[in-house]
Amino acid sequence: VNFVESIARKRDGGELTAAEIRAMVTGVTDGSIPDEQLAAMLMAICIRGASEGETRALVEAMRDSGAVWHLGRAYTSAVDKHSTGGVGDTVSLVFAPLVASCGVPVAMMAGAGLGHTQGTLDKLSAVPGFEPALSLAGARERLDRCGACFAAQSDEIAPADRRLYALRDVTGTVPSLPLIVASIMSKKLAVGAPRLVLDVKWGRGAFCKTVAEAERLALGLGAAGRAGGVAVATLITDMNEPLGDRLGTSSEVRAALEVLEGRGDARLRDLTLELAAAALAIGGGDRDRAEEELQAALEQGRARAKWDEIVRAHGGDPDPARLAAPRERVEVGAPAAGFVREVDGEALGWLAVALGAGRRRLGDAVDPAAGVVVHARVGDRVEMGSPLATLEVGDRAVDAAALRERARGAFVIGDAAPAQRPLVCRRLEG
Amino acid sequence: VNFVESIARKRDGGELTAAEIRAMVTGVTDGSIPDEQLAAMLMAICIRGASEGETRALVEAMRDSGAVWHLGRAYTSAVDKHSTGGVGDTVSLVFAPLVASCGVPVAMMAGAGLGHTQGTLDKLSAVPGFEPALSLAGARERLDRCGACFAAQSDEIAPADRRLYALRDVTGTVPSLPLIVASIMSKKLAVGAPRLVLDVKWGRGAFCKTVAEAERLALGLGAAGRAGGVAVATLITDMNEPLGDRLGTSSEVRAALEVLEGRGDARLRDLTLELAAAALAIGGGDRDRAEEELQAALEQGRARAKWDEIVRAHGGDPDPARLAAPRERVEVGAPAAGFVREVDGEALGWLAVALGAGRRRLGDAVDPAAGVVVHARVGDRVEMGSPLATLEVGDRAVDAAALRERARGAFVIGDAAPAQRPLVCRRLEG
Repeated sequence: VNFVESIARKRDGGELTAAEIRAMVTGVTDGSIPDEQLAAMLMAICIRGASEGETRALVEAMRDSGAVWHLGRAYTSAVDKHSTGGVGDTVSLVFAPLVASCGVPVAMMAGAGLGHTQGTLDKLSAVPGFEPALSLAGARERLDRCGACFAAQSDEIAPADRRLYALRDVTGTVPSLPLIVASIMSKKLAVGAPRLVLDVKWGRGAFCKTVAEAERLALGLGAAGRAGGVAVATLITDMNEPLGDRLGTSSEVRAALEVLEGRGDARLRDLTLELAAAALAIGGGDRDRAEEELQAALEQGRARAKWDEIVRAHGGDPDPARLAAPRERVEVGAPAAGFVREVDGEALGWLAVALGAGRRRLGDAVDPAAGVVVHARVGDRVEMGSPLATLEVGDRAVDAAALRERARGAFVIGDAAPAQRPLVCRRLEG
Repeated sequence: VNFVESIARKRDGGELTAAEIRAMVTGVTDGSIPDEQLAAMLMAICIRGASEGETRALVEAMRDSGAVWHLGRAYTSAVDKHSTGGVGDTVSLVFAPLVASCGVPVAMMAGAGLGHTQGTLDKLSAVPGFEPALSLAGARERLDRCGACFAAQSDEIAPADRRLYALRDVTGTVPSLPLIVASIMSKKLAVGAPRLVLDVKWGRGAFCKTVAEAERLALGLGAAGRAGGVAVATLITDMNEPLGDRLGTSSEVRAALEVLEGRGDARLRDLTLELAAAALAIGGGDRDRAEEELQAALEQGRARAKWDEIVRAHGGDPDPARLAAPRERVEVGAPAAGFVREVDGEALGWLAVALGAGRRRLGDAVDPAAGVVVHARVGDRVEMGSPLATLEVGDRAVDAAALRERARGAFVIGDAAPAQRPLVCRRLEG
């Protein structure tokens, strides 16, 4: 079967065989299928979807397109965590030291950010000298030194995903459930942590706009994980407002440190504890005991100490004073008194991109000094002129007045207090 | 609006504005939109379709992507003819001299063949020295000399179509009604003959597998023509078997000459006369009188003489002895006695491609000596061993026994005479 025939079958709503999918992924990896043919196939998959069997074949073929580390062989209780992407979501930077300080190895593949959400890899890059693992040897070295490892997708891991993701970014084929599942899970399975905690976001700032969509994605990810021999626990969580109170790379590292020091943003801390408890209890562990252990690790400073250890094991300098500082701050005050009813995370996320804290396109540079601090959270009572946010300006020349207006537009202030939305809506395990 | 946003809207079933479509076609023509983004958009259009307004905007933008000849200004009664592609369809080569010999200028854009059907341009190229017009000056010169002109798509006419067609060919995005309408009509409108006769084929050897599909395509083409100020007459005709009895470039030139000489294949003659009468009567002319005129032009040899005139006006040598002859002939006999119930034109078309008479991919060379002669037509009574077809072998080395078997497989022979199928199913004018 030649590839144009495969494209035509998917175009007409037909199903591809596992052999066709493997042949496609081989052509992605070795470059023998040109971009235009892949783009046509990606769009056909985007519109027509893919069956569970097709998705599984795609995940496996993409996993096998590069090195498979099988980390679970040496680190049999290692856990990985993945979020589908949110604004102010600094969980990974707290989760890794917290869980590792409880004796459970953490092995995470960190990705670069795109669009209105920042990536863990970018935040880690804000720490001077921090080098993620790019090989199995590098991952093992870090795990052995500190019980945790942040890896970055190199040419070695799932190279097919690398090419497909870059292509999807420019061809309008990002929002496809099977393609998202394959992109995420191929990398998870290639690294090979035997346990995985998933944080699937729903809401205006997330890819899934409803809880139902988030559940579909969670089920797809869970099925692909289980098919690959991984124990998966999933939380479906709120992304109708920013998770934490900081956006931007250095700013989010500071936010993580605050939580590790027992201070910091309550929502960021709560969700991290939920995900960390799920990680410790995965496969039938005692959840109450897991929560106690985690609280103790925070209170006794072990999690905070583990952060420094992890940074050093990755070649970085843990001194917070060395994080980039903004060149200038622009304060944003409330235009009226009232209750904060909504905080539009997506708008703030794009504002952070405008400040230089994120990227519009793959390959854009990120300014570690740029960011946004959110002072007024949903439910807060504010007076006219009280601080809503602080814009942290880095190297990029910006129009402060225009950005201040944009920032103000992200806050909806009204007379009545808003209804409370649960941070965690659903827990799926199995 | 950037192009990725346009792709995303079409992906989700939305409608593009005329301005977006114009911007896209500009990006096609000047190369600023890369192949992978166009491929994604083409696939989205293929699956989601396009509204009448979108189709019209696409036709107009593609027409305006290059030179617009406005031939109708100087040749106010000029007629063009287009077929959606059939096997053994040599009509153009008879139609042009026949209609021109009745005093009506003929201006046709001839295309190269792809797949199981041969293109008029390839057949004309089989005539030694024949040069189609590539510019307005060349077209006018030929029209002034002989009352007819065959043009070929150069970089000048609808360059956007050239790039899109090449891309569609390799991305599984050929079978899309709006894309087909835009490809055909943009070129017709750029050349600018004010009258157009369309032959929309239906059947197993055609793009449209049913009469209903053919009607939809006919309506789309007619609407685009009328929107462009062209009077259109359309016939929906049978392509469940080859139209004429010859496939291959030189072979089809010979078939056209036979009809022009008052001999030749009855189906090819009948359909050509139907289309020519529609051309002469378009816009309310007297059809009976048109038929009489055409018959007289054939019987009195004027149409035959016009062919030589047209060939000379295009720099060609009209001596039929100079057409390429096959190196070898493979006779195919009937495996049993009975009635010929079906002749699979698509199978014979691909057989002709295997012999070298057509191309699998854009850019393949065509062998003018290769072809197929069909002896047994649907409804004929054959005895065991009677000739079904003759394979004309050119320069390509072939496995005669295997091809003979394939050719035999294209004929279904049974005990009962088949029901008759009308050659022309529907006539649409307006």
